[in-house]
Amino acid sequence: MSRAILQHRRFISLEGGEGAGKTSAIAAIREQLQRSGGEIVLTREPGGTPLAEQLRALLLGKHEEILVPEAELLMMFAARAQHVRNVIQPALQRGAWVISDRFTDSSYAYQGAGRGLDLSLLETLEQNVVGLRPGLTLLLDLDVREGRARTAGRDLWPDRIESERDDFFERVREGFRRRAAAEPERFRVIDAAQTPQAVAADVGGAVRAWMEAAEA
Amino acid sequence: MSRAILQHRRFISLEGGEGAGKTSAIAAIREQLQRSGGEIVLTREPGGTPLAEQLRALLLGKHEEILVPEAELLMMFAARAQHVRNVIQPALQRGAWVISDRFTDSSYAYQGAGRGLDLSLLETLEQNVVGLRPGLTLLLDLDVREGRARTAGRDLWPDRIESERDDFFERVREGFRRRAAAEPERFRVIDAAQTPQAVAADVGGAVRAWMEAAEA
Repeated sequence: MSRAILQHRRFISLEGGEGAGKTSAIAAIREQLQRSGGEIVLTREPGGTPLAEQLRALLLGKHEEILVPEAELLMMFAARAQHVRNVIQPALQRGAWVISDRFTDSSYAYQGAGRGLDLSLLETLEQNVVGLRPGLTLLLDLDVREGRARTAGRDLWPDRIESERDDFFERVREGFRRRAAAEPERFRVIDAAQTPQAVAADVGGAVRAWMEAAEA
Repeated sequence: MSRAILQHRRFISLEGGEGAGKTSAIAAIREQLQRSGGEIVLTREPGGTPLAEQLRALLLGKHEEILVPEAELLMMFAARAQHVRNVIQPALQRGAWVISDRFTDSSYAYQGAGRGLDLSLLETLEQNVVGLRPGLTLLLDLDVREGRARTAGRDLWPDRIESERDDFFERVREGFRRRAAAEPERFRVIDAAQTPQAVAADVGGAVRAWMEAAEA
């Protein structure tokens, strides 16, 4: 059943917890990529296609019934299958750069480490349903309480996942850090506790170095 | 990763293609079970819970984008995870009989045999996400063209799956028959080409024999 997972150098993902500053990091990534003059596709997960966005609404909405962790996992990967096949792969094939706000590493962190689902089930899904990994993944790493403090003002209506408790987000953060430690060639860990200017400089520098290496 | 799949004797599923007469077969199953005097829960797939019914609407609706076969499979199993955990298991635990119009065998037939998805992926999902099999499965077996002819009058607006071509439904029928041949103790294959009265008699007889064996 195991298939190869392709890694694509023009595919960049951004990962991190709540309040880590992903929005301004995306602007910094985009600014660097624009210097190449090529097409840039900016997308996000869960979502990125009309059907995947409908799954996102079910995933982040609150329900009368318990959302079973395994169902959450499969809906995330169903949305990702649509996203990869209908948006990311076509963009990469026509030579565009693709920036995704979250990708499979988020499932390992949130559904794997956070909810405690079996990593071998995630690996099977990544191999059989996704089959693609970013060339570069930027992880915005931030203390959970600091992230919560930053979003406290803006999240008047936290979604279903944002409503989890701190111990859940501690496991998510550790999950991301383990992923980064296991794949140091793909990951760049950015200290998101710095000023926004310093974070943007680190993100921009990492992308610039990646582009230079890719062109060399 | 492999876990045991529990088989429950008070859980009965009904399987079959288009036009095979599932509605009247359910009435015949119900009539037999009512003689036991206990609670009977009648449910269906995809669906059976509010969230699973929302997934059903996405699965059977038509979309502007291609619905990737792997995404279809994962959405089916996500709906099934909700159905098992929130409806079927609680009903079985309080001693009810459960009749499900379609269950995991439909995924093996439609997404496995019909769409050609890897059976080992389905087995992984059945083990890790479902973990439950019916004690008795009634398969209404019918020639594909005969089934199509029967539904031609009523399906003015066929759904996304009903709109597939005959060769797809031939593979689905063969998929069901292979499942039945591999598990003769669980399956009863009913010749759905008979008159409705004869089908109801066969279905009722199979359920009566099953209940008697279960009580013995």
